Amino acid sequence: MSILVVGSVAFDSVETPHGRVDHVLGGAATYFALAASYFTDVRVIGVVGEDFSAENEAVLTRRGVETLGLEHVAGKSFHWTGSYVNNLNEAQTLKTELNVFETFAPKIPTAYEDSDFLFLANIDPVLQANVRRQMHNVKMVCGDTMNYWIHDHRANLDKVLSGLDTLLINDGEAKMLAGEGNLLRAARKVLSTGPKTLVIKHGEYGATAFFSERSFVNGNGEAGIAAVPFRAPALPLDEVVDPTGAGDSFAGGFFGYLASQPQVDLAAFKRAMFYGGVMGSFAVEKFGTERLQQLNREEIDLRFSRFREMSHLD
Amino acid sequence: MSILVVGSVAFDSVETPHGRVDHVLGGAATYFALAASYFTDVRVIGVVGEDFSAENEAVLTRRGVETLGLEHVAGKSFHWTGSYVNNLNEAQTLKTELNVFETFAPKIPTAYEDSDFLFLANIDPVLQANVRRQMHNVKMVCGDTMNYWIHDHRANLDKVLSGLDTLLINDGEAKMLAGEGNLLRAARKVLSTGPKTLVIKHGEYGATAFFSERSFVNGNGEAGIAAVPFRAPALPLDEVVDPTGAGDSFAGGFFGYLASQPQVDLAAFKRAMFYGGVMGSFAVEKFGTERLQQLNREEIDLRFSRFREMSHLD
Repeated sequence: MSILVVGSVAFDSVETPHGRVDHVLGGAATYFALAASYFTDVRVIGVVGEDFSAENEAVLTRRGVETLGLEHVAGKSFHWTGSYVNNLNEAQTLKTELNVFETFAPKIPTAYEDSDFLFLANIDPVLQANVRRQMHNVKMVCGDTMNYWIHDHRANLDKVLSGLDTLLINDGEAKMLAGEGNLLRAARKVLSTGPKTLVIKHGEYGATAFFSERSFVNGNGEAGIAAVPFRAPALPLDEVVDPTGAGDSFAGGFFGYLASQPQVDLAAFKRAMFYGGVMGSFAVEKFGTERLQQLNREEIDLRFSRFREMSHLD
Repeated sequence: MSILVVGSVAFDSVETPHGRVDHVLGGAATYFALAASYFTDVRVIGVVGEDFSAENEAVLTRRGVETLGLEHVAGKSFHWTGSYVNNLNEAQTLKTELNVFETFAPKIPTAYEDSDFLFLANIDPVLQANVRRQMHNVKMVCGDTMNYWIHDHRANLDKVLSGLDTLLINDGEAKMLAGEGNLLRAARKVLSTGPKTLVIKHGEYGATAFFSERSFVNGNGEAGIAAVPFRAPALPLDEVVDPTGAGDSFAGGFFGYLASQPQVDLAAFKRAMFYGGVMGSFAVEKFGTERLQQLNREEIDLRFSRFREMSHLD
């Protein structure tokens, strides 16, 4: 099955305790596409400027990623400058230069219209909803968002949430979205806004999928939505060289694996959670997308086995 | 097999978002003993004052916990006053009244000398080392500590660490002990100080056991890498009524289960990690030790199954 991803393709300038890189290829759609490319066909929709070279594009195409929907326009590409020097677990944004991304209006090439799966990376919910509407025939839609959209564009975001099969966010975002500090109660609230599954990423502690179950009855006899949890581990790593893109790589591994399966059932979902963690763990081992460019399915499955060994009783 | 636990038996006055309780039975040794009592015989060494009633003691003895080593002296029992109103994940200590605990000098009754397992709860490392020396014939020693001892009594603590089979601490303590922010590298450093296994508790994210090469042999019969991780989940809970004692209850479930096993091998260790999480999850459901007093093995094993289901692919 093929995945269509819409999101940012960008350049990142990043400083971490391990060093710094300047203007390396990044962006949510890039990390997602590379990670997912080890499992299934991926098609990208994004926008880049004149500074985006043939070699930059080849990073995607060498992995078989379709870039027909990567629009080239006059101006500079989105450029993010950030630092993890003080805290490896949270990026400090030093500069956001939206450039050509500021007027991004996703256009879906005809050749993309038969995509089976849709991933809405973290962009303006108005654009997410727009793409979602045009791709109304897809089998499954997964989306991401961030605190800015949750806080300042809630009405627009709500329209996106109601059309999602799976929402993939982190702890802080889930709690903010629900206005609720307890993770389980937050998950229930988020699930009541539309998504059938909520995947919450906990960084170095792994991730939890909450599956909605509408038969749930609470202590007061009221019907509600149960959030049945499944927890996937993260691999304790010697060195986190560059955390940039870890969440998007998780999403790529998760959704890429799901799209590769003949049936999207609970068992496939659980394995997808593990593959998400696996791809996230690879992404942070080197700066930028370097590690994600050089993998093969054998080492991915080897690490999957380590995740299983690390979390299973037998 | 029987476990000897030495640690605090105290009264707690606690405020949480769910309410407040005044002078309820608490203390690390109490939580540990109650949690472990569902798996094996437990013997307590501690000190209490004249305010410690027959009913307080009956909470332990009703669970079959041996209190011969619970010394009654003139004065008041250790009293801790804390609040979780602002943060359910971290206690804010409002008052620590050591009272009779200030001059606690653990004495080991003759009837305790044949104990097979020893748990050194979080007390002055000088006392921990003292008890450890007297119980030199035990099969396995597990210990806890906290930032105060790590920071201000390091030389004394080091003597304890070198005599431990398993050290059970939380993230912050492990990082402080190692002087290292990366969890895996911190684990390796801590393991190099003596313990064969380090169990790091992550609160609502579960816990990770790191096995040193000395206690771990891989599938090929070769000595494995140091700090091999095993991660156990925590149950997402609707309501954390009172987090007090969660870590000690984890320790009780973990060590109690291990002591109940014919063989302390890797598989037993992994199951013990799950039972630790199970007992921690029960402890926080009600104020004080209330929930730990009313359990039965059937509901414990039912929750164990939920932990397995929540984390296993098949």
